Amino acid sequence: MTFKTLAISAAVAVTTLLALPAHAQFAKSEEAVKYRQGSLFVIGQHFGRIGAMVNGKLPFDAKAAQENADIVAAMAALPWTGFGPGTDKGAPHKAKPNVWTEKAKFNEHAQTFQAEAAKLASAAKTGNLEQIKTAFGPAAQSCKSCHDAFRNR
Amino acid sequence: MTFKTLAISAAVAVTTLLALPAHAQFAKSEEAVKYRQGSLFVIGQHFGRIGAMVNGKLPFDAKAAQENADIVAAMAALPWTGFGPGTDKGAPHKAKPNVWTEKAKFNEHAQTFQAEAAKLASAAKTGNLEQIKTAFGPAAQSCKSCHDAFRNR
Repeated sequence: MTFKTLAISAAVAVTTLLALPAHAQFAKSEEAVKYRQGSLFVIGQHFGRIGAMVNGKLPFDAKAAQENADIVAAMAALPWTGFGPGTDKGAPHKAKPNVWTEKAKFNEHAQTFQAEAAKLASAAKTGNLEQIKTAFGPAAQSCKSCHDAFRNR
Repeated sequence: MTFKTLAISAAVAVTTLLALPAHAQFAKSEEAVKYRQGSLFVIGQHFGRIGAMVNGKLPFDAKAAQENADIVAAMAALPWTGFGPGTDKGAPHKAKPNVWTEKAKFNEHAQTFQAEAAKLASAAKTGNLEQIKTAFGPAAQSCKSCHDAFRNR
């Protein structure tokens, strides 16, 4: 058993997101900012390692691809709790104000990413690079479209 | 299915740690520092939410305890790859030099934490606060002893 057991379905992730208990919040806005930045950075690192294989910059390693995809899928539900009300201040960050003013649209992006991350983890389980490539594109696009809309450069 | 499916055994985590492929490393030392800081911060947040229940600062919520413990257990193997050779510089951090000069001792602490995190996740699955308390103590102690030995204040 490795990280392959970590993958969760997008539907579950979304349910978890919406059902978060009140005490799952943060003591200070600064902590929420650090939490979302930290979790997104860790996700980005593991996602990037799959991307390097997809783009041929690293030799394909099915086991590593699966482990990385499972970490991404397992963590995909986490960052969004760090964008709660009032966390537009408290620490330097790159989130645009519309994260808070267009919350429904932002949540939709977050949910799309979780769904694509779950698909990528499923693809990675096959050990087939072509299937991973097919799933990687939309997952990467879900990152980019959210960053374009909600993150300052 | 929620985060309860995320828990992994400590033995597996240690195996993953030791078997990390070369491409699981970081492009720059700065990235390794951000990665370990980010993953440890996320772990700390979820661990702290269990601690608040254990210490009576928050009402006990068995489901939330289990979700938080599963996240901690699932992520417990991650931070240590961010302490590779050369990552004692490249970005501000609080790791003491002995992380790199006493690597075997440091790894032992990391492995103890992973074992205790797995036990805490198992305890949380019971939904029994007393069992969670019993497992929480040694897990918290494993954080503290490593911080005392290897982290600047």
